[in-house]
Amino acid sequence: MINGLSASLAEVLDGRWAHIRQAVRDELGAEFVTVPGEAGDEARERVSRLIRELPTEVGVAAAFPAGYGGSDDPGGSTVAAEMLAQVDLSLMVKAGVQWGLFGGAVVALGTARHHDAYLRDIISADLMGCFAMTETGHGSDVQRLRTTCTFQDGHFVLNTPHEAARKDYIGNAARDGRMAVVFAQLITGGKSYGVHAWLVPIRDADGNPMPGVTIGDAGPKAGLLGVDNGRLSFDHVTVPRDMLLDRYGQVAPDGTYTSTIENDTRRFFTMLGTLVRGRVTVGAAASAATRNALTIAVRYGESRRQFTAPGADREITLNDYLAHQRKLLPAVARAYAYVFAQEELAVTMSEVFALTEPDEHRQRELESRAAGLKAMQTWNATATIQMCREACGGAGYLAENRLPGLKADTDVFTTFEGDNTVLLQLVAKGLLTGYRDAFGSLDGWGRATFVAEQVREMVLERTAARSLIQRLVSAVPGRDEEIAVTDRGWHLAVFEDREKHLLEGVIRRLRGGAATKKDRPFDIFNDVQDHVLATATAHIDRITLEAFVAGIERATDPAARELLSKVCDLYALTTIEAGKGWFMEHGRLTPARSKAVTAVVNDLLRELRPHMRTLVDAFAIPDEWLNAAILREEPARQEAMAKEDDAVGATLAG
Amino acid sequence: MINGLSASLAEVLDGRWAHIRQAVRDELGAEFVTVPGEAGDEARERVSRLIRELPTEVGVAAAFPAGYGGSDDPGGSTVAAEMLAQVDLSLMVKAGVQWGLFGGAVVALGTARHHDAYLRDIISADLMGCFAMTETGHGSDVQRLRTTCTFQDGHFVLNTPHEAARKDYIGNAARDGRMAVVFAQLITGGKSYGVHAWLVPIRDADGNPMPGVTIGDAGPKAGLLGVDNGRLSFDHVTVPRDMLLDRYGQVAPDGTYTSTIENDTRRFFTMLGTLVRGRVTVGAAASAATRNALTIAVRYGESRRQFTAPGADREITLNDYLAHQRKLLPAVARAYAYVFAQEELAVTMSEVFALTEPDEHRQRELESRAAGLKAMQTWNATATIQMCREACGGAGYLAENRLPGLKADTDVFTTFEGDNTVLLQLVAKGLLTGYRDAFGSLDGWGRATFVAEQVREMVLERTAARSLIQRLVSAVPGRDEEIAVTDRGWHLAVFEDREKHLLEGVIRRLRGGAATKKDRPFDIFNDVQDHVLATATAHIDRITLEAFVAGIERATDPAARELLSKVCDLYALTTIEAGKGWFMEHGRLTPARSKAVTAVVNDLLRELRPHMRTLVDAFAIPDEWLNAAILREEPARQEAMAKEDDAVGATLAG
Repeated sequence: MINGLSASLAEVLDGRWAHIRQAVRDELGAEFVTVPGEAGDEARERVSRLIRELPTEVGVAAAFPAGYGGSDDPGGSTVAAEMLAQVDLSLMVKAGVQWGLFGGAVVALGTARHHDAYLRDIISADLMGCFAMTETGHGSDVQRLRTTCTFQDGHFVLNTPHEAARKDYIGNAARDGRMAVVFAQLITGGKSYGVHAWLVPIRDADGNPMPGVTIGDAGPKAGLLGVDNGRLSFDHVTVPRDMLLDRYGQVAPDGTYTSTIENDTRRFFTMLGTLVRGRVTVGAAASAATRNALTIAVRYGESRRQFTAPGADREITLNDYLAHQRKLLPAVARAYAYVFAQEELAVTMSEVFALTEPDEHRQRELESRAAGLKAMQTWNATATIQMCREACGGAGYLAENRLPGLKADTDVFTTFEGDNTVLLQLVAKGLLTGYRDAFGSLDGWGRATFVAEQVREMVLERTAARSLIQRLVSAVPGRDEEIAVTDRGWHLAVFEDREKHLLEGVIRRLRGGAATKKDRPFDIFNDVQDHVLATATAHIDRITLEAFVAGIERATDPAARELLSKVCDLYALTTIEAGKGWFMEHGRLTPARSKAVTAVVNDLLRELRPHMRTLVDAFAIPDEWLNAAILREEPARQEAMAKEDDAVGATLAG
Repeated sequence: MINGLSASLAEVLDGRWAHIRQAVRDELGAEFVTVPGEAGDEARERVSRLIRELPTEVGVAAAFPAGYGGSDDPGGSTVAAEMLAQVDLSLMVKAGVQWGLFGGAVVALGTARHHDAYLRDIISADLMGCFAMTETGHGSDVQRLRTTCTFQDGHFVLNTPHEAARKDYIGNAARDGRMAVVFAQLITGGKSYGVHAWLVPIRDADGNPMPGVTIGDAGPKAGLLGVDNGRLSFDHVTVPRDMLLDRYGQVAPDGTYTSTIENDTRRFFTMLGTLVRGRVTVGAAASAATRNALTIAVRYGESRRQFTAPGADREITLNDYLAHQRKLLPAVARAYAYVFAQEELAVTMSEVFALTEPDEHRQRELESRAAGLKAMQTWNATATIQMCREACGGAGYLAENRLPGLKADTDVFTTFEGDNTVLLQLVAKGLLTGYRDAFGSLDGWGRATFVAEQVREMVLERTAARSLIQRLVSAVPGRDEEIAVTDRGWHLAVFEDREKHLLEGVIRRLRGGAATKKDRPFDIFNDVQDHVLATATAHIDRITLEAFVAGIERATDPAARELLSKVCDLYALTTIEAGKGWFMEHGRLTPARSKAVTAVVNDLLRELRPHMRTLVDAFAIPDEWLNAAILREEPARQEAMAKEDDAVGATLAG
């Protein structure tokens, strides 16, 4: 199905983990693909069964230590999850809960005795588990969650003090989970040491809740019907001492607390930092599902005719309309951009995880990028899949054409694994060095008389292909209007300049606020929140563009390289166009040049029109994974219909 | 529940059809409200039962002639449907199919013998029917649909010539419909007279398909599970001569065709024009559902705490965050704007329908505004409900909190009753006078060497409160930078100027294209499609603002008036802000003034923050209609939880 140029592009897009991508394509046939319009109970049953049947070759458990059957490849595991998202998002989320969150927490927060006792059963899915962090009253404020786990008489007592501390939206809880990693405030000797995690049995062998454990069902959801989200409460549940996942904090039999990290806040963030893989995975999955939607919409638009075009010199399909190209092609370009940015993120994660000496700077950079790319990719998924569904007209509303499922299933991504707005604040915070110890959690920004003192000179971190990008940027002659709007160096310079200017603005405003709003600490931060979010967005836009530019270098086929370069132009210029208001406000674009950007975008649309199908074919999604009735009928039926239709039309006209 | 100021606002918003709004609120209790998470079969059964139980007082059949039990109030019927949309969108759509599309077509296209025979049973829902227009292959191109109805041997023969001519997405078809208004090409004496409509039995008394009629089920959909959408095909079905809905075209026993409208295209558009109520209703319903979502999100944000805010001088809830206000308040302002614009549209429709002499100019203006407001309100619904769902975090993803249903049910509105992109083109076309006879259907634009000749001087049609608006605009001293960005006259002038400039640009480009692209007729239109869509959007923005400004005048309570004026400021300025790129490109805003707009928007958010709850309470949606678990628990439970939480927090901190 994939032609030469598509194949060349696919090779570039598949990248470092091509072997995992291909394995998943080879191994997972129609029996694993989501069933549109399925009822909730059926979906849960099917997904629960399929997760146990996933062949190990597909790499979903790749992140586990080699000694336990994994392959020490955390980056590969996010790629595997990304591929699974194209097959069935419920299956991907269920896998993410089991092997990413639950298994990942046991690996990262536990020690050898936990690994020896549980990892093999976790990998085989014989032991299904939950990740019980989020509470009803504290969705985003994990550091202040209310569940307590108190050491007394040689064991812990886990307790949900009140309704707002109930664990909520917990995957695997309502049906399949036998254990849970439960996050709670560790209290020993009458003193609280902050959030820690325990491995807690929640169901017995017969599937009944353990004594003191109350399990609820989260009930019908917008999507992800195959995932059994539930609610957990604990009424003074006894937890043996050795079930504390004690890599970062230990409690001796006499109740003495020890940790290599003195500061509670720093320890909390270190523990949370080990769980960054969840965010990396969600962003990847969102973009993967977006590629499904784009493939469906572009292929439909390639054959679908809307109006008979009298006197036209060719057959006009939806993709020939400028308005349709304006919707689909920039979204395709952005999808390409995120493939490169996501791979770079996975590579960074692999490198940071492989460090023998912790590097706080790189760790923070990783967390910041994971948070930002998760937010940007999931919002993009919501917007783009919606656009694709509309681009397919009424057909896009039918479950059999897959788009309703893609939309409903990915919708939750914008608020789970961190609310996107909160995550973007985290990104901005990451750009201000030295923040963590001084401020702790996000709200700590408001506590600050200090912001001014803490903020140090900011240096833009370059991403991949540093030297190439530096060379391109350096070649740009200032803000000269003479330079072509398609100049790659100009794109890079513009993205970089915007980020830097916005960040400096935030720093200046925080300094000003710290000086004048001492008595209104909340307002210091709140009054600049819009600038903070804009800064974070600009940052992620820049690292995404840089990753795209670096990615083009991987192409060996000249035709693929040329096409990728045009797609990159389109990504860069539509991003500039979307922000043209800001660029003109800040003297970065003249009105004339702004109009020129739009004109060049329209030219690019015309140039890329003939390659639309090629560009989505390069996503290399098997037809049976797309699972859309409107594509199964294509192109043969569409063409036959069009021909019959022309004949009838001619009769009517005659 | 509604305080004094909310009540004053509600009175203004309820407007001319307040009696219908209140009747629906009084009559429809919890038993009519949508059931979140319901399965498809249950939903169909429930909605099918409830539509028969709707009391006549709620006005859903108000548009019917008084002589048959209606009240000759087409505007009132759209308001009734709008209210029903807040109760259950499936019920609203089912009602819209039955009384709006099916019944409406019988009224508008039929004559006395059809009215006498069927209207009473249609109103009572004893005769359930379908509106069979859309075909698989011709979703948007109704004029070229392929179903034929050929007169021979004293009767018609209705036939679906091939698969692409199958009637698709037809409401009431899969389960309940006994008859259908079927649109087909009328052929008699070997000649085609264009699209007409027939009343055709599709099921017998036992519910079995009539001979020659094939009925399919459209299958699971993204939403509107209570509506039985289906597919209809006809295999040489005999239709008696008198079942032609023959108001605009008649066929005598000998097969002679007569019509008071000679031109086929003009006749087609006249027939279609009578069906404008469907679009008016869909826009209204979309905005009504949006108000449900905004009410849920604002009330949730009023009590929900995200992070503990240390040192804050007050309790911080989600609505206190600038970013949250930035999401919710402009959307609330837009919701207000559309209430006024929609009412003005319904009034215009009532007036046009009441004319004894057809007024082509007013008819075209009505169709144009109905199309544009349908497009803008439905896109706004999709975006705003999505935003509300995210603003509620994980809770927004649970069916019990209603937002998933609102989202999924309204999603189809962007592409049904006319695809939004196609509708905006219709709006732009309506702005160019004298288009219809020369061009016919949309694609005809491309046929045009003549566009240049046809386009006449464009005059902006003023909407309500013409003199007031003229006075405000006249008071603005040119493009003086000195005028306050909150000046109402400046807002009006800016909106008007943008529309005029865009429209002139389209005309200029079409003229240029007609001169240089004679051999590429499709491209003449296609190359300016982005300008066409921008023009249409600017037009609808202007009439919306003018309606808002006029609406403020209705307020008698000075406090309500002042608040409405601020909300109008926010609507106008966020609309200008969203288009600031264009305004700067075209010298309408300086960079400094553009920044000032943003600063004033942020000031407005702070000023409106204390009124957020008041503003949504004024939508006057009964709590049982909101039907969201997170609101039922509010405020008592939220407050109790927060207090318990503070106590536990204090213990942990201690």
